[in-house]
Amino acid sequence: METISSWTSFGGKLSVHQHDSELCQCPMQFAVYTPPQVTAGSTEKVPVIWYLSGLTCNWSNVMEKSGLQRIAAKLGVMIIAPDTSPRGDDVPNDDAYDLGQGAGFYLSATQEPWSTHFHMDRYLVEELSALVFKEFAGDADRQGIMGHSMGGHGALTLHLKHPETFRSVSALSPIASPAQVPWGEKAFTTYLGDDRSQWSDYDATELVGKQPSKAHILVDTGDADPFLEEQLRPALFIDACQKAGQSLNYRIQPGYDHSYWFIASVIEDHLEHHAAILKG
Amino acid sequence: METISSWTSFGGKLSVHQHDSELCQCPMQFAVYTPPQVTAGSTEKVPVIWYLSGLTCNWSNVMEKSGLQRIAAKLGVMIIAPDTSPRGDDVPNDDAYDLGQGAGFYLSATQEPWSTHFHMDRYLVEELSALVFKEFAGDADRQGIMGHSMGGHGALTLHLKHPETFRSVSALSPIASPAQVPWGEKAFTTYLGDDRSQWSDYDATELVGKQPSKAHILVDTGDADPFLEEQLRPALFIDACQKAGQSLNYRIQPGYDHSYWFIASVIEDHLEHHAAILKG
Repeated sequence: METISSWTSFGGKLSVHQHDSELCQCPMQFAVYTPPQVTAGSTEKVPVIWYLSGLTCNWSNVMEKSGLQRIAAKLGVMIIAPDTSPRGDDVPNDDAYDLGQGAGFYLSATQEPWSTHFHMDRYLVEELSALVFKEFAGDADRQGIMGHSMGGHGALTLHLKHPETFRSVSALSPIASPAQVPWGEKAFTTYLGDDRSQWSDYDATELVGKQPSKAHILVDTGDADPFLEEQLRPALFIDACQKAGQSLNYRIQPGYDHSYWFIASVIEDHLEHHAAILKG
Repeated sequence: METISSWTSFGGKLSVHQHDSELCQCPMQFAVYTPPQVTAGSTEKVPVIWYLSGLTCNWSNVMEKSGLQRIAAKLGVMIIAPDTSPRGDDVPNDDAYDLGQGAGFYLSATQEPWSTHFHMDRYLVEELSALVFKEFAGDADRQGIMGHSMGGHGALTLHLKHPETFRSVSALSPIASPAQVPWGEKAFTTYLGDDRSQWSDYDATELVGKQPSKAHILVDTGDADPFLEEQLRPALFIDACQKAGQSLNYRIQPGYDHSYWFIASVIEDHLEHHAAILKG
């Protein structure tokens, strides 16, 4: 692991790293916010919250625009911000913003040419996780996961499949039923093929119906989000949670759109939601 | 005035506007953060804090990266973020990042070809100010001014020259004696000419010696700032304030550099400093 950059931020440290990923078959970058409780010399490990970004993003969007370091410093939690896909000249890509590099959709591709590199779910849970808990003072027994848009899809599905690993979960403007909306149909067809039975493992709405978790899920979506009706479709996920008995607080926030102006406005509630569970 | 963009942010509104500037002889953009106290329908005017950005920046840097909307919402103050220079194909420029467009230095140029467009100090105090108080619910009797780097120079000098207008002042990593450092010598020579007697009106260290204000000045600079010794030189300003009897709290913050990671980490203290004076 190579450290690319490091800055003091809210008394803690924001650092950016690169490592060679076996699962993604390329160098991968990620950022870590280490809270001041650790940088001041405490040897106690701190809870970790994974933040999964949306289409086109990398580690920088949330770190530059959400203001979450302030809250992580206050709560004493570590933040891990991975990239959204494999990247590089040797990695397949597509001209569209919603496919290929920057659009990994937190799944393991089975279709060529994607299946060589696109394994973001296993990369996070197996490879990056092992690296992070070896190199940083995060507590592997106290992990939460959250994300925005495509990353909200990633957070919900990874929590539902690994509820003992990711004990707390929340999402911002998530694509909570990708199998039923254009963004997800395009990505799943491309990465997983036409057989829709292969998609259900990556659809939070389907997953929650089969295996609801014991966690309380927090979701925020803005009512001025231009993707609300076509791509996000909150009602699908809300209905599935009700039927499955999944504990859920899905808030529709008036006036907000899909941007980081929205994320910054509500993210404090999310980090406090995670910290209450992980530190409780 | 044309509204280019508008977003809900922390319950208030962030909006970006463009107007044709007579003083700068070009279209100029600026952003306004209107706190929720106003957007919720209160007819009471709120205090205004001007935020002047540094080299290469425009309105977006502080709004995207500092997190100050959260604090402005809490305190009920309006933020105005102007551009750092005239811009456009018809405006003179230079290949260097520290001259021409993005590097207006909050002065009125006297040298050709700059003197046609570069009048950022008068633009702010005369033209943009008139527009803002006509169009928005800011209280012209309760204005503060702050800025970063080149904008810290702008905030300090505009306060010292207009202490009744900008009643509160603070600066982040300011160029507080541009006449004595490379960034300022280059800009002042270019915009104002070789006669150094014409520079003193734009040098906070010289100004404070001649006309200290009754305000308490707050300044923060990081001790890991790569520009500290050559361009910022805190001691010059601290000494001048002591000699002139200017009330000053100049804090050197351990570990921080010149970036928005630093600004975000300390800006809450600055907005609270302004609000305490303007709302007191």
